[in-house]
Amino acid sequence: MNDIEVKKVIRRAIEEDIGTGDITTDNMIENGRKVEGVITVKEKSVVAGLKVAELVFKEIDSEVKFEHMKNDGDLVKEGDKIASVWGEISSILKGERLALNFLQRMSGIATKTRKYVDRVKDYDVRVTDTRKTTPTLRDFEKRAVSLGGGHNHRMGLYDAVLIKDNHIKSVGTIGESIERVRGKIPHTTKIEVEVESIEGVKEALDNDVDIIMLDNMSLEDMERAVKLIGGNAISEASGSITLENIEEVAKTGVDVISVGALTHQIESIDIGLDVK
Amino acid sequence: MNDIEVKKVIRRAIEEDIGTGDITTDNMIENGRKVEGVITVKEKSVVAGLKVAELVFKEIDSEVKFEHMKNDGDLVKEGDKIASVWGEISSILKGERLALNFLQRMSGIATKTRKYVDRVKDYDVRVTDTRKTTPTLRDFEKRAVSLGGGHNHRMGLYDAVLIKDNHIKSVGTIGESIERVRGKIPHTTKIEVEVESIEGVKEALDNDVDIIMLDNMSLEDMERAVKLIGGNAISEASGSITLENIEEVAKTGVDVISVGALTHQIESIDIGLDVK
Amino acid sequence: MNDIEVKKVIRRAIEEDIGTGDITTDNMIENGRKVEGVITVKEKSVVAGLKVAELVFKEIDSEVKFEHMKNDGDLVKEGDKIASVWGEISSILKGERLALNFLQRMSGIATKTRKYVDRVKDYDVRVTDTRKTTPTLRDFEKRAVSLGGGHNHRMGLYDAVLIKDNHIKSVGTIGESIERVRGKIPHTTKIEVEVESIEGVKEALDNDVDIIMLDNMSLEDMERAVKLIGGNAISEASGSITLENIEEVAKTGVDVISVGALTHQIESIDIGLDVK
Amino acid sequence: MNDIEVKKVIRRAIEEDIGTGDITTDNMIENGRKVEGVITVKEKSVVAGLKVAELVFKEIDSEVKFEHMKNDGDLVKEGDKIASVWGEISSILKGERLALNFLQRMSGIATKTRKYVDRVKDYDVRVTDTRKTTPTLRDFEKRAVSLGGGHNHRMGLYDAVLIKDNHIKSVGTIGESIERVRGKIPHTTKIEVEVESIEGVKEALDNDVDIIMLDNMSLEDMERAVKLIGGNAISEASGSITLENIEEVAKTGVDVISVGALTHQIESIDIGLDVK
Amino acid sequence: MNDIEVKKVIRRAIEEDIGTGDITTDNMIENGRKVEGVITVKEKSVVAGLKVAELVFKEIDSEVKFEHMKNDGDLVKEGDKIASVWGEISSILKGERLALNFLQRMSGIATKTRKYVDRVKDYDVRVTDTRKTTPTLRDFEKRAVSLGGGHNHRMGLYDAVLIKDNHIKSVGTIGESIERVRGKIPHTTKIEVEVESIEGVKEALDNDVDIIMLDNMSLEDMERAVKLIGGNAISEASGSITLENIEEVAKTGVDVISVGALTHQIESIDIGLDVK
Amino acid sequence: MNDIEVKKVIRRAIEEDIGTGDITTDNMIENGRKVEGVITVKEKSVVAGLKVAELVFKEIDSEVKFEHMKNDGDLVKEGDKIASVWGEISSILKGERLALNFLQRMSGIATKTRKYVDRVKDYDVRVTDTRKTTPTLRDFEKRAVSLGGGHNHRMGLYDAVLIKDNHIKSVGTIGESIERVRGKIPHTTKIEVEVESIEGVKEALDNDVDIIMLDNMSLEDMERAVKLIGGNAISEASGSITLENIEEVAKTGVDVISVGALTHQIESIDIGLDVK
Repeated sequence: MNDIEVKKVIRRAIEEDIGTGDITTDNMIENGRKVEGVITVKEKSVVAGLKVAELVFKEIDSEVKFEHMKNDGDLVKEGDKIASVWGEISSILKGERLALNFLQRMSGIATKTRKYVDRVKDYDVRVTDTRKTTPTLRDFEKRAVSLGGGHNHRMGLYDAVLIKDNHIKSVGTIGESIERVRGKIPHTTKIEVEVESIEGVKEALDNDVDIIMLDNMSLEDMERAVKLIGGNAISEASGSITLENIEEVAKTGVDVISVGALTHQIESIDIGLDVK
Repeated sequence: MNDIEVKKVIRRAIEEDIGTGDITTDNMIENGRKVEGVITVKEKSVVAGLKVAELVFKEIDSEVKFEHMKNDGDLVKEGDKIASVWGEISSILKGERLALNFLQRMSGIATKTRKYVDRVKDYDVRVTDTRKTTPTLRDFEKRAVSLGGGHNHRMGLYDAVLIKDNHIKSVGTIGESIERVRGKIPHTTKIEVEVESIEGVKEALDNDVDIIMLDNMSLEDMERAVKLIGGNAISEASGSITLENIEEVAKTGVDVISVGALTHQIESIDIGLDVK
Repeated sequence: MNDIEVKKVIRRAIEEDIGTGDITTDNMIENGRKVEGVITVKEKSVVAGLKVAELVFKEIDSEVKFEHMKNDGDLVKEGDKIASVWGEISSILKGERLALNFLQRMSGIATKTRKYVDRVKDYDVRVTDTRKTTPTLRDFEKRAVSLGGGHNHRMGLYDAVLIKDNHIKSVGTIGESIERVRGKIPHTTKIEVEVESIEGVKEALDNDVDIIMLDNMSLEDMERAVKLIGGNAISEASGSITLENIEEVAKTGVDVISVGALTHQIESIDIGLDVK
Repeated sequence: MNDIEVKKVIRRAIEEDIGTGDITTDNMIENGRKVEGVITVKEKSVVAGLKVAELVFKEIDSEVKFEHMKNDGDLVKEGDKIASVWGEISSILKGERLALNFLQRMSGIATKTRKYVDRVKDYDVRVTDTRKTTPTLRDFEKRAVSLGGGHNHRMGLYDAVLIKDNHIKSVGTIGESIERVRGKIPHTTKIEVEVESIEGVKEALDNDVDIIMLDNMSLEDMERAVKLIGGNAISEASGSITLENIEEVAKTGVDVISVGALTHQIESIDIGLDVK
Repeated sequence: MNDIEVKKVIRRAIEEDIGTGDITTDNMIENGRKVEGVITVKEKSVVAGLKVAELVFKEIDSEVKFEHMKNDGDLVKEGDKIASVWGEISSILKGERLALNFLQRMSGIATKTRKYVDRVKDYDVRVTDTRKTTPTLRDFEKRAVSLGGGHNHRMGLYDAVLIKDNHIKSVGTIGESIERVRGKIPHTTKIEVEVESIEGVKEALDNDVDIIMLDNMSLEDMERAVKLIGGNAISEASGSITLENIEEVAKTGVDVISVGALTHQIESIDIGLDVK
Repeated sequence: MNDIEVKKVIRRAIEEDIGTGDITTDNMIENGRKVEGVITVKEKSVVAGLKVAELVFKEIDSEVKFEHMKNDGDLVKEGDKIASVWGEISSILKGERLALNFLQRMSGIATKTRKYVDRVKDYDVRVTDTRKTTPTLRDFEKRAVSLGGGHNHRMGLYDAVLIKDNHIKSVGTIGESIERVRGKIPHTTKIEVEVESIEGVKEALDNDVDIIMLDNMSLEDMERAVKLIGGNAISEASGSITLENIEEVAKTGVDVISVGALTHQIESIDIGLDVK
């Protein structure tokens, strides 16, 4: 994550929530009284977003002190105190909801990722996210995936080639698609191809791609594909991966399993802030 | 929703995804060939985000035609075609994921909202969202709640007063809290107070508030509170509302039930775009 | 006011005035010499904008010290020193005009507001602003109205419903207009209706609105309206209110008097900055 | 004026007023019905801001038709129709207040300027504005001054040198001040010096400045100064110019009279929009 | 290139050049007269920037017609007409300098790139740019390199790993550096290591990197390195590459030669616009 | 230069280079270790951009210390240390390339300017830049010209009138062109006219312009023109000025020589940063 970008998002979020002013707090609370707020997790989870939460409070009031009692990525249990904030009560009250909104979502993603990762921890395989992220918050969500023990897939359409079904249909063949793109992209960029059959795997291998995405293949075909690839490309399983079937998929020997659900099903973790 | 704001968010989302360019499509697809893409829903749901999806494609390429086959808010079933896009294949491919990311999330929220609303359809009660929304996308999510048959709570800290626990603790009493704020806010603004006990309800009533939030009260207390209020304020149930308990809550006679889960648990609907 | 927004406006104002550089100061003054500047009011007035002026200097040079000798909202007389700034002479010279431009306008609005408020100080009535504010500076102007002892009306089209003549004409009747909107807006939002006759007042009351705006009514009709309303809605007088007639209007018993002139006739207060 | 900048200001103004949506119009008016709105002036004035008003409506809804019945700069009388807008009723209602806010202020400035200019129309003298403009709206206000027959002074601190009292005090002498700056600024840039005495005029002339500002001088001194200058620099009268004294000032023979009141006392013109 | 980003840069450039208005054109030219302007190249070159130039004029005035007589990437000779613009004379005059500033610089880069590429056209080698680009205009400059027949290196610090001298020094060894990064980056991302000796090449190969940058190596060492690598990684020559020595470098058999001079020495091509 | 604007450009440049994160440094370097980096010039040059480089590092990490060993504008020789930075190694590595990109380009411009200025140091003449600057970086480049001993021409189309060939052609005559513009522009603004012949010089003089640009004239004509002008306007030579011919041009007695090549041929100076 790039702090300059993160702060821009936070400022927009503050504008969204506070707008022309927090009319409850501004009209009720006198400045001067400082309080401590303690942030507590209410269910077992992997914490993610503490640094973001800190930046939220600092952006609202640079005088606020934020103490990390746990670190991003830590596994915590119900009742664990993960951070405390100390400052003007009005600053704490204004930042509370927004800080929690980031924390709860990011921790939700990290926690879910951890569950997927744990299921396949005995296999030599990576669990990655996809581009199915919340628009404008991809960076936050990919960070949460990392904190949960997962890995990131490409950041966007600009940093790796992924030739999909619709591209191939439009160009004609896998070979022709790869040839067109290979001559133009930077030599620092990898090429991934999405295939749906063993035929596709062969064609991709013949064209010397870096990564082969096995899209919605049966477990048997996946296993055959992995053998066929034999280490000459990275194999990536994709499509309809669930907590239930991920171990079966890992058993096929694929190198990477990409899981859309990590970010398009978001179950926020229950986290609260109590002012003392 | 305000189109100027919506377009700003969409432009940021395009920047996030496309960055310096879609290196797969830009290096592979020749301009000139136009195709149709059909957007299909793969599970029963309430559609939300079609207008946003249209704006995504238009922002990428103003020549793209977008036809609505269903309208935002429609209940659709598996396999229903909800829209078609027609234009340069490269424009369709670039906008596909982003348009779907909006559609899937917004439809997920609308569909979930509908479930809550349906559970209490025989009661004279509103189901509303909260401020537990995805940072910077509140407007999109509140729109989705509306499309699912729910209602919106206040938009942010600026458009209604909500005196919470922490405010009252800081000021001393409910009465004093209300008095401070009432003299300063616009006469066009309502005051809501969060209470946790029947005592609190009485104090709020004595101070003539507009809305009383019954926070995490037992069903029995809620029922007593509603009777006590007797139409002299709007009663709002809040805290730990689930699909399982919402009907019980509605039976207490409250006017409004606010449900954080509508937006902090996001289950994207499966929606796909197929290029013909 | 929300500091993040205020600073954004200030930065734009600095860009507008300084552009590519203050070619007089930058080419003439050597850095290093620090001076004190004293800000003095040259006519009896209510000061408004000191916090904004401070932010102007801080934004130009974070090292500048700004001391408040009076507070925003204070009544001051000719010759009163209201603040001093201390820092690099070039920073003082660059910020001077812009700080004064804010101070003079905001104090002009606060001072005028105070005059209106003073005229009706023996009545139980509020004097409020309207949406007739300077585009992009509404927040600053509404703040100045508050500092002058007035109250704010709604902030914009988004935080309260105000059904006007043109709306009613378009829909048909007051009743139908209210019914359409009531079912859709948040329960945290008030409804105001603009009426021009006693008939209108009755229709509004029948439909249980929160606020009734008596638009350009005769004093007699206003008085009748107030009696008719009898505390069942907030009554607001509007249209052609002047310093001369405001007391007569207050005598009718209305709860609120909204005065466009507070912000659409701006008489800047004469305020100067002298470098010692 | 530069359209790109003007549109940016307009978009900010729309965001300020409409925010998350016009909850009255959006929840009440069905799309599809088109109406005409007529903009009428309610007092004798010089119209300014029609082009800005047109851009306001176009920015809200590019389909709106805007017809100019008068042009910016025209002298109009009570009751004159100056423009009509035609389009979706919701677009007209949303843009109405903002378009009028610009029109009323800009026409107020143009009308006031015209009064000053008319007083001195028999003299060979320019009436100009100053930097005492509304922060972030200088361009709009300077345009209004031009439309009222006045001229613009420098746009900001970046496009002309103006050596003031505080600069001279800091450097030592007028001569030294000018020498420092002359060697560094572009040869395309003029130098103006503010003087308060005949001595100052002489020193300025000795140093070959382009413009001499006679600041708050007596009429007698001004006359002497003009003679002394004898066409070797532009003479500019400044300070405490009013409608009452401007003709006396013009009689001294100065080339330019700069009038802060043109923009720091803003008397909006009464202009209305009626939907038919 | 991503049009949304390109237009943002163009708007900033227009603001920079036109600011509050083109005071020459706006005060002199009457609207209504349309003219044709022809853009002519005055020296042999590779054209780059025509699409950008078109967007410049369209952004200033969407009615301007822009006809491409040559395409971006075409080799042209002195006197060749490359484009014509037709529209309001004021729009042509306002956009002229800015359009040419983009065209001249981009064509300068494309032309220089072509010279380097031509020198090694008989070798199986790519010529690429580096990160030594003009701040905020990298995308434009990398596009120009492509149009000149060169290839792009990574876009920034975010889309490929490049482990340099300073990284290795900080971590300890090449092996440790690679190990740390490999486990964390996406599987879609390549790793490049900068080495200065044959020892470094071996260490990089042992750690299975994708690209080995041979930094400022002697031709002999480069040749040895290429043999050692033997197709197991991409070899990239870097450092002090000139038109004079590039062929010698190509002879060593490296796959890629990266040339900082393509973008940090900018020789604008002489291109003019004549209004007929 | 205006720091607010400079920082905006720097932030955009950081976003361009770092994007979603420096994946090499972020995944490899542990926080905590602080290092010193020394910036050294590798060829004789005039340093420009040190203040910008400092702001680059501060923007990335406000804790970084930046020490100026030389000042902007100093003449330095190969091997001179010009600045040191001290801070987190990751901050130094992230800012290195961008800081150097600014320094190298600005120093390149300053150094080249110095060469032109030195050639005419025995003549009473200014060397200035033009509007042929890199889009969006004009301010940085004009600053570099100043630091190299040159002067700036107008900043853009907004701060001085320059009537060119195409303007005159469109209006008819020089006289008519000047007349139109003179009545409308501020009295603080100069008028320059571009002429190509002695006839043009006479017409310009008759119309009392401030500056006459002698465009691509022969040395003989220039000399005649200078005599004809006789101090009644500033004379400016322009067009095809090179290091070779600038002294000959200066001998004609012109006041100003404007040189496009200062900024449209950019030869970056070799400057490096070494981490100790």
